[in-house]
Amino acid sequence: MEQQFSPITDEEIFDSHLGGKLTVGLTAAIDNKRDLSIAYTPGVAKVCTAIHENPGLVETHTWANRLVVVVSDGTAVLGLGDIGPSASLPVMEGKSALFKRFAGLDSIPLVIDTHDVDEIVETLVRLRHSFGAVNLEDIAAPRCFELEEKLIEALEMPVMHDDQHGTAVVVLAALMNAAKVVGKNLADLKVVISGAGSAGLAVSDMLVHAGISNVIVLDSQGTLNRHRSDLSGKKQEVANETNPENIEGRLSESLVGADAVIGLSTAKFDLPDLMKMAKDSIVFALSNPHPEVNPAEAREIAAVVATGRSDFPNQINNVLAFPGIFLGALDAKAKKITTEMKVAAAYAIAELVAEDLSADYIIPSPFDERVTQAVADAVMRTA
Amino acid sequence: MEQQFSPITDEEIFDSHLGGKLTVGLTAAIDNKRDLSIAYTPGVAKVCTAIHENPGLVETHTWANRLVVVVSDGTAVLGLGDIGPSASLPVMEGKSALFKRFAGLDSIPLVIDTHDVDEIVETLVRLRHSFGAVNLEDIAAPRCFELEEKLIEALEMPVMHDDQHGTAVVVLAALMNAAKVVGKNLADLKVVISGAGSAGLAVSDMLVHAGISNVIVLDSQGTLNRHRSDLSGKKQEVANETNPENIEGRLSESLVGADAVIGLSTAKFDLPDLMKMAKDSIVFALSNPHPEVNPAEAREIAAVVATGRSDFPNQINNVLAFPGIFLGALDAKAKKITTEMKVAAAYAIAELVAEDLSADYIIPSPFDERVTQAVADAVMRTA
Repeated sequence: MEQQFSPITDEEIFDSHLGGKLTVGLTAAIDNKRDLSIAYTPGVAKVCTAIHENPGLVETHTWANRLVVVVSDGTAVLGLGDIGPSASLPVMEGKSALFKRFAGLDSIPLVIDTHDVDEIVETLVRLRHSFGAVNLEDIAAPRCFELEEKLIEALEMPVMHDDQHGTAVVVLAALMNAAKVVGKNLADLKVVISGAGSAGLAVSDMLVHAGISNVIVLDSQGTLNRHRSDLSGKKQEVANETNPENIEGRLSESLVGADAVIGLSTAKFDLPDLMKMAKDSIVFALSNPHPEVNPAEAREIAAVVATGRSDFPNQINNVLAFPGIFLGALDAKAKKITTEMKVAAAYAIAELVAEDLSADYIIPSPFDERVTQAVADAVMRTA
Repeated sequence: MEQQFSPITDEEIFDSHLGGKLTVGLTAAIDNKRDLSIAYTPGVAKVCTAIHENPGLVETHTWANRLVVVVSDGTAVLGLGDIGPSASLPVMEGKSALFKRFAGLDSIPLVIDTHDVDEIVETLVRLRHSFGAVNLEDIAAPRCFELEEKLIEALEMPVMHDDQHGTAVVVLAALMNAAKVVGKNLADLKVVISGAGSAGLAVSDMLVHAGISNVIVLDSQGTLNRHRSDLSGKKQEVANETNPENIEGRLSESLVGADAVIGLSTAKFDLPDLMKMAKDSIVFALSNPHPEVNPAEAREIAAVVATGRSDFPNQINNVLAFPGIFLGALDAKAKKITTEMKVAAAYAIAELVAEDLSADYIIPSPFDERVTQAVADAVMRTA
C-alpha cells in the first residue's frame, strides 16, 4: 500500500493559498547602478537591437520561448464545472507550479473571460510572442476539441489540452502495465470507457491508436454507437471508430466480458456489474476526489485497480506526463505535439516500472524523479 | 560626483540575458503527495469553490490581484522606435524585474502583436482576471494616450503608461528641488520642454497641474502654440493649456529668459542657446543614452544639470516612481491612479533629499532603499 498521510485540514489548504502559489524571481541580482545598466537601459537596448536584426535570438535571450502559459476559460474546472475564470485561478496557479516543480519550466496562468473559441484563439495569437507553449486546462467539451485544433493550426508552438492528452498518455501507460500483470495482450483487450468528456474521448483515441480494436465509450445516454442519432462532432467520430460490435445499452451491458473499465465521469460502478467482466479484470476508477467505486471493494473482484487518488495504490496522475511532454517538445524545438510523441511518452512511463511491476505497482509515483526526463527524452527522440 | 563603474562589455550584457531575466518560483515546496494534495487536487478545489461562492477571496488567495503586467506593442522601444513585440521583450522583462526588485511586486511581460488600440483593450479585458494592474510601456504617441484612457475606463484596476507618468513624476520631483537649490519659486519658473512625445506631453500636464503657468512645449516643428493648424488630439490640448505668451519659433527662441529646459527628445541643446536662459538656469538633458548636451559642459552654464544616465549626478530615473506608485495603489486597493497620487509621489521623492540638497543632489539614488515605501505611503494616503 502507498504511504498514508495525515488528514489535510481546510485551514492548511487556505493558509497555503494565501497570496497565491506563484512568485516571479530575477535570474540575476540588481544591486547597483552597474547591474541596472545591464538589465535595463542602456544595456538592454543592445539585446533588443540584436533580436530585431536577428529574430532567432529571442529564443535564447528572453524567457518567452520556454515559458508555458496555462490557459483556461474556467468552464470545466476539476469536478466543479463552469465556475468562471477567476475561481479557476487556484487550479491554474497549481498547474504552473507543477510545470516548475516537475519540469523546471517557467509557467504562468492566463484565464480568459470568454467562451468563444475564436476569441480565445485570437487572444493567444495576439500574445504569441509572450510565450513558447500553451497548456489548455479545464475547458469544457466539445469546445475544447475545436479550440485545441484551431490553436495548433494558428500557433507555431507546442499546444496541448492536458485534460485530454495528459490523461490519455498516463492511462495508456498504466493499461500497458496492467495488461502485463494479468498476462493479456494489450491489443486484444476489450476496454470500456465510462465518460465521453474531453478525457474519455481522448483516452479512446489513444487506445485505438495503440492498437486496441475493441473499445466502447459511454456517455450519460449509454454507449456511443452507430445507431444513435443524437451524436455530432468528436463524439460522432469516436462512435464511428470504436464499438466494433455496435453494442447498445448502459454500462451494465457493456461490461459483460470486458477486460478493462476506465471511469472518467461521475457515474458510479456497481460491484455486480464489475463481476460480469472477464477473468483478471482491470478497473481504473479515475474520478476525483470520489472514485467511481471504492478501490478496496473493487480489488476483491478485479486483478488490478487504479484511481486518481494519492492515498491508494496505482495513482493515475497527469503530472507523470505533461511536464515531460512539454519539456521534450520545447527541448526538441518541436512546433507541434504529435500523437507519436504522446505514445512514446506512454511507453517511457510504463517502462520505468520494469521488474518491480505488480498488481499494486503498475505506474511510477509522481515523485519518482526519473519520470520527467524519461518522458522528455522519449518525446525528443520522436520529434 | 556619482561613483563611476567599470565599462560594461557587450559580452557581459548578452551573457546576462541568456535564458531571459525572469523566472517563476513556488511559494511553497511540493515535495510529497501531501503537498501535492494541498496545492493541486483535491485540496485546491476547496479554494476554487470558496472563490466561486465569495468572489472577493480571489484577492487574498491567488497571486493575480497583485500581479503587474507590463504591456507593450513594441512600437516605441527606448530610443529604438518600432521594433515590434518580440524584440521589445528584453525591455519588458527588465521592467518586470524592476517591479520585483524595487517594490516586491510580481510582474510578467505581455507583448501584443497588434497596433490597434481597441484590440489591445479587448485583449486585456478578456484577460483581466489574470492580473491586478497594468503598466503600459514603450507604446508610440499618440496611440498611447487613447490606449491608456480606454484601459483606465475598461479595467477596474491601476493602469499607468510609465513613459508618460513615471517620467513626469520624477521630473516634477527633481524640478521642485532644483528650484529650491537656485532659490526660485516653482510656480514662477518659465519651463521649456523639448519633445512632445508621450513623456514631453505628460511632463507638461504634470507641471501645469503643479501650478507652473509658463510652460512651453516644442515638437520637431517648433513650439506648440495656438497659431499652428497642424495640431490635433493631445498636442492640441497641450497647445491650448501652455505657452501663455503664444511664443512661436524653435528652441533657440523659446530658451530666451527660461529658468529651466527639459530635454525629452533627441534634439540637441546648443551651448549658445543655453546661455540665453535666465540666471541660475536648470538643464535636464534626459535623452538616453545620449543626453541632449554634454552635462559637464552644460554645468559650466547652468546652476543645476540632470540627465537620465547613472554615471552623472542627478539621474532622473523612472524607477524612483513606478514601483512605489503601483505598490501604493495596490495596497490602497485603488481602482485608478489619479493625478493627485502622482503629485503626492513627486513630493515624496523630493522630500527624501532633505538637508543634503545641493546642485549635484536634487534627487535620490534609485538604490536609496527609502524611496519605494515613501512613494507608496504618499500614494496610499492620497487614495
